[in-house]
Amino acid sequence: MVRFGIIGLGKIAHKFAHDLAMVDGVELRAVGSRSLDKSSAFAKAYNVKHHHDSYEDCMKNEEVDVIYIATPHVFHHSLTIQCLEAGKAVICEKPMGMNSKQVQEMISLAREKNLFLMEGLWTRFIPGVKKALELINKGAIGKVKHVKADFGFYVNPQSEGRLTQKNLGGGSLLDIGLYPMYLCNLLLGKPDQIFAKAEIVNGVDRRVNMIYKYGDASGTLYSSFEHKATVEAIIQGTDGILKMHEPFHHCSRLTLTDNHGEAQEMNVPHQGEGYYHEIEEVRDCIHQGKVQSDKVSWDDSLALHAQLDEVRNQIGLFYE
Amino acid sequence: MVRFGIIGLGKIAHKFAHDLAMVDGVELRAVGSRSLDKSSAFAKAYNVKHHHDSYEDCMKNEEVDVIYIATPHVFHHSLTIQCLEAGKAVICEKPMGMNSKQVQEMISLAREKNLFLMEGLWTRFIPGVKKALELINKGAIGKVKHVKADFGFYVNPQSEGRLTQKNLGGGSLLDIGLYPMYLCNLLLGKPDQIFAKAEIVNGVDRRVNMIYKYGDASGTLYSSFEHKATVEAIIQGTDGILKMHEPFHHCSRLTLTDNHGEAQEMNVPHQGEGYYHEIEEVRDCIHQGKVQSDKVSWDDSLALHAQLDEVRNQIGLFYE
Repeated sequence: MVRFGIIGLGKIAHKFAHDLAMVDGVELRAVGSRSLDKSSAFAKAYNVKHHHDSYEDCMKNEEVDVIYIATPHVFHHSLTIQCLEAGKAVICEKPMGMNSKQVQEMISLAREKNLFLMEGLWTRFIPGVKKALELINKGAIGKVKHVKADFGFYVNPQSEGRLTQKNLGGGSLLDIGLYPMYLCNLLLGKPDQIFAKAEIVNGVDRRVNMIYKYGDASGTLYSSFEHKATVEAIIQGTDGILKMHEPFHHCSRLTLTDNHGEAQEMNVPHQGEGYYHEIEEVRDCIHQGKVQSDKVSWDDSLALHAQLDEVRNQIGLFYE
Repeated sequence: MVRFGIIGLGKIAHKFAHDLAMVDGVELRAVGSRSLDKSSAFAKAYNVKHHHDSYEDCMKNEEVDVIYIATPHVFHHSLTIQCLEAGKAVICEKPMGMNSKQVQEMISLAREKNLFLMEGLWTRFIPGVKKALELINKGAIGKVKHVKADFGFYVNPQSEGRLTQKNLGGGSLLDIGLYPMYLCNLLLGKPDQIFAKAEIVNGVDRRVNMIYKYGDASGTLYSSFEHKATVEAIIQGTDGILKMHEPFHHCSRLTLTDNHGEAQEMNVPHQGEGYYHEIEEVRDCIHQGKVQSDKVSWDDSLALHAQLDEVRNQIGLFYE
């Protein structure tokens, strides 16, 4: 039995707890919030043995093996460091840190402590995404030449939530732009060059257009808080096109079209809210005594965050 | 009756002649090729009164009002100049010239001679494109925020046709990249900034990725000779998304999806091979004594070619 704790009990923690209850061999043993009312209600709702009114107490709970960090982005780094110092394995919701430096520090400490650490890139474990990767790796569309992916929804720029506030890690790039970027990494690896343009409002990006340039391929990536986008990925290869239907980061439908226009639709449902499969991976890694996942490795996170740094450098957006 | 001549009797001339035969109030009166056999066979096939074994004879034919120039790109400028000098109106297949300087010269001469001249941007007259524009102009998707469009097909880089040879005006940008660019112009006007990256092989572009940046919108544009692309346009607005189905530059199907996911499909067929509607426009302009079309004006061509210059400047590709 792998025993989980969750700190930060917002919307995503609810989805995670909902899915965790469906996975074999895991248990949600403790939850922590700065508000006792919140942790108490959460524990009741998901039948959790321990609830704490501080993150620190939760991460010190001796019955917990691994902590899922579900707070806003800006707290990921310091809380992960604290959890690792307390001897806990960590799954940290994406983005793992606000910049590469933070991510490097988190990974260094995990290595030093010999503790499991993974960025919560849940999309990697979604059956539809895995299926897309499998099809492509076995040559279903030939050589990948162009990855088009976008992600957008409307956020009122006047709202005061974490998405618009710089001190809370706001902006479309870190919240959703990261998904098209990660997909491009998954399919084509690290780009040779990145070009990014953005619209910045109140210190954070409302929209980012990116070109990923590879020697023999490219990516056309986009994120926006200005409108609902298609949130789909179109992967164009020499022998065909694979469409990952909306929402592509946890897609459940694929369409494979060959160069003669012959189309094949595939339904690839996922369990729960989409975190189920990620929780299985964490469970298995911890069972096997691994400190990192092969599927979302430390190098994968370092590569992604180096790209995020590069994009922010080009668009003039910096988080401390 | 508006009497047409065609010079350059390749594939596109056949399609044009096929459509011309369906349009009221026009007649294909003469055709010219450097090969008498070719012009003779063409005249026979389309029941054309005169055929010439030189472009010059065709453009001097007194029974012709307007010449359609259907030769490879590199000859468009000099042949247009010759036609105008010979007192003929001209519809010049796109791209009108190899660079802005040529386009400016062509327009200056048309202005001086008071003769009709239009770049053959036939996509502008396609009912599906007109319908898309109408829907958007009446606010069907709110404010346009992002135009995604691509165009690609495979061309063997070793082949010796016009598409791969620099001295014949080769490259994906001028042949097909121009369509996504033109669509962006049509929907959002001239961009504030353009960013382009390309792969150049044997002196011409195999692929171009472009970002069009506007104050409050953007375009993500792509052309490639490396693979078959989706050749679709996805227009994302504040209130919904309009998809121009493949092939978007002469699309016959639109899907309008509102922000609640409610989708409406529209079939908008076009006549003939797609040139029918453009021929109607030329006929009407000439009837009305116009020297330019309101829909594809000289300014429209100048704007587009200035953008093509800018893209080529960024990717290091220059035509004399």
